[in-house]
Amino acid sequence: MKPIKLIVFAVFAVFLAALRTHAASPLPSWNDGPAKQAIIEFVQATTDNTNPKYASPADRIATFDQDGTLWVEHPMYPQMIYCLKRIGILAAKNPEMKNEEPFKTVLSGNPEALGKLSAEELQKIAMTALTGMTVDEFNAEVTKWIEWAKHPRWKRPYTELTYQPMLEVMQYLRANGYKTYMVTGGGQDFARTFAERVYGIPPEQVVGSMGNLKYGYDKDGRPMLTVEPKILLEVNYTGKPEGIHLMIGHRPHIAFGNSPGDRQMLEYTKAGDGARLALLVLHDDAQREYAYGPAQGLPDTKVGRFPQELYDEAGKKGWVIISMKSDWKRIFAFDQ
Amino acid sequence: MKPIKLIVFAVFAVFLAALRTHAASPLPSWNDGPAKQAIIEFVQATTDNTNPKYASPADRIATFDQDGTLWVEHPMYPQMIYCLKRIGILAAKNPEMKNEEPFKTVLSGNPEALGKLSAEELQKIAMTALTGMTVDEFNAEVTKWIEWAKHPRWKRPYTELTYQPMLEVMQYLRANGYKTYMVTGGGQDFARTFAERVYGIPPEQVVGSMGNLKYGYDKDGRPMLTVEPKILLEVNYTGKPEGIHLMIGHRPHIAFGNSPGDRQMLEYTKAGDGARLALLVLHDDAQREYAYGPAQGLPDTKVGRFPQELYDEAGKKGWVIISMKSDWKRIFAFDQ
Repeated sequence: MKPIKLIVFAVFAVFLAALRTHAASPLPSWNDGPAKQAIIEFVQATTDNTNPKYASPADRIATFDQDGTLWVEHPMYPQMIYCLKRIGILAAKNPEMKNEEPFKTVLSGNPEALGKLSAEELQKIAMTALTGMTVDEFNAEVTKWIEWAKHPRWKRPYTELTYQPMLEVMQYLRANGYKTYMVTGGGQDFARTFAERVYGIPPEQVVGSMGNLKYGYDKDGRPMLTVEPKILLEVNYTGKPEGIHLMIGHRPHIAFGNSPGDRQMLEYTKAGDGARLALLVLHDDAQREYAYGPAQGLPDTKVGRFPQELYDEAGKKGWVIISMKSDWKRIFAFDQ
Repeated sequence: MKPIKLIVFAVFAVFLAALRTHAASPLPSWNDGPAKQAIIEFVQATTDNTNPKYASPADRIATFDQDGTLWVEHPMYPQMIYCLKRIGILAAKNPEMKNEEPFKTVLSGNPEALGKLSAEELQKIAMTALTGMTVDEFNAEVTKWIEWAKHPRWKRPYTELTYQPMLEVMQYLRANGYKTYMVTGGGQDFARTFAERVYGIPPEQVVGSMGNLKYGYDKDGRPMLTVEPKILLEVNYTGKPEGIHLMIGHRPHIAFGNSPGDRQMLEYTKAGDGARLALLVLHDDAQREYAYGPAQGLPDTKVGRFPQELYDEAGKKGWVIISMKSDWKRIFAFDQ
């Protein structure tokens, strides 16, 4: 080969190699840093069958909290916004609700009063709004709502306010043989209406809170399933590992969360043999999303609170903190 | 081509075609008949995207009862045999159980007295035997037991007493994009210990009865999950469609059972749009397995009873009856 040809060939080979590297580089919306590195090292170790930390394909389970981990939860959980709207519909049919708390406050629409509702009152609102329908009616109603409801800040559907870096993590894990599960304190059937379209997570891989199911018949004698106003599963705190065992039957190898409701899921994940990775999303980017803690001096909040003791526990136990501000190049798919 | 060569070629082509047909012929342990035909027509219709009954791959859900549908349930459910043995172990540690019914009867080992235990007494035995352990302890104990315990008639492990024609149906459905689920009134964690090895059904595709799960810590502070003696899910009768919605979130396209505990699952399956198939195994082969009804004049039984009204309902609603005697060429893999 003549020298000039050799140079052309060498340049071309370098160019091809660069192209390949680029195509194979996972997590493009992540900055290089300890969080991205931990995820990639974990995937490489558990999928390399010469590595002592290798995980068999059947064991490759990844679990993700939803609110604040996969999509925006501020200023209020999207499901709670749906519930408030549904209380309005129910009150129009049942006028006695207009004089009953906490529905009276809900119907006032006063943001300050809404912000002061207690956990018990919010639970009562959710139970009233999310039960009493057949699963088919509920599914149809949420499917309609989720299409037109818009976030007050971005004026976009909630399903567009999913975190692009997390969507990439899910794709990367699936490309490496992991089954991705959502494990949410929110309603299982609520999330199932859009989880496949938005996250690529099919209904059977959504683990969430559930009311009691009741099999019966409609007026034409056709079978129907109704959700009763009685909690069957509450997938939060200890309910996360309990729900994981019930619905999946394996311990996850990797788990993502963002608040104390995810603590036990992360602890349970890390208690397994071999490589296990636990990660917490820290909302420290008021400009591109929101900033709340009160960990690390961030403003305190009632929604998705991240206390300093969780931050300290993460440090002691080797749970990885994902800083939205420094670890993520972009937050949303529509960001430039 | 000369005539002689042409004939050789034609014979060879026919031979090849026959080979192909043979290789592609599913359900080799099934006799040609209405049950085999219904299964094959169902699979062909739901996987042909030019057919109006086509089912998208995400919707291809198949559910199977276990006891009497996938493996032998006579003279007693294998799980109940495990429970009886475990009562013995518990009574050795807790002598007061020796004077308490129904444990006293269990410990007597008297088959006639055991046969007279009521449904409530059997439930008490099961709850006592299947709860109070961590899920890891339980898993380890059942894994050991299922390896050495042998059926009194065949002197083989229960896991060899699975029905070969049903294993073929599961393989055939999976080869056509169906996800196969077990939906059993028996314990979910019990079946999970062997479902993958025996049926190719991974833990997350086993839906069964469950006690309440409780997250806690062992004496070394390690997380553990314990099963409490309180029913969370009872996956029988109406509990089958309820468990299917909870754990799968789709209506099955095809469902197999063998007794009234499966009735609602079959009804729920058939109530969906498009092609839906419901099938019931009838134990009418005393020589190769067992014969019990009392449908169709078969002997009555307490275990896996198949009443005449279920048989009549199947006829009215187009549910397919699988006769073990006439539809199955062989029952077990070890049969000639």
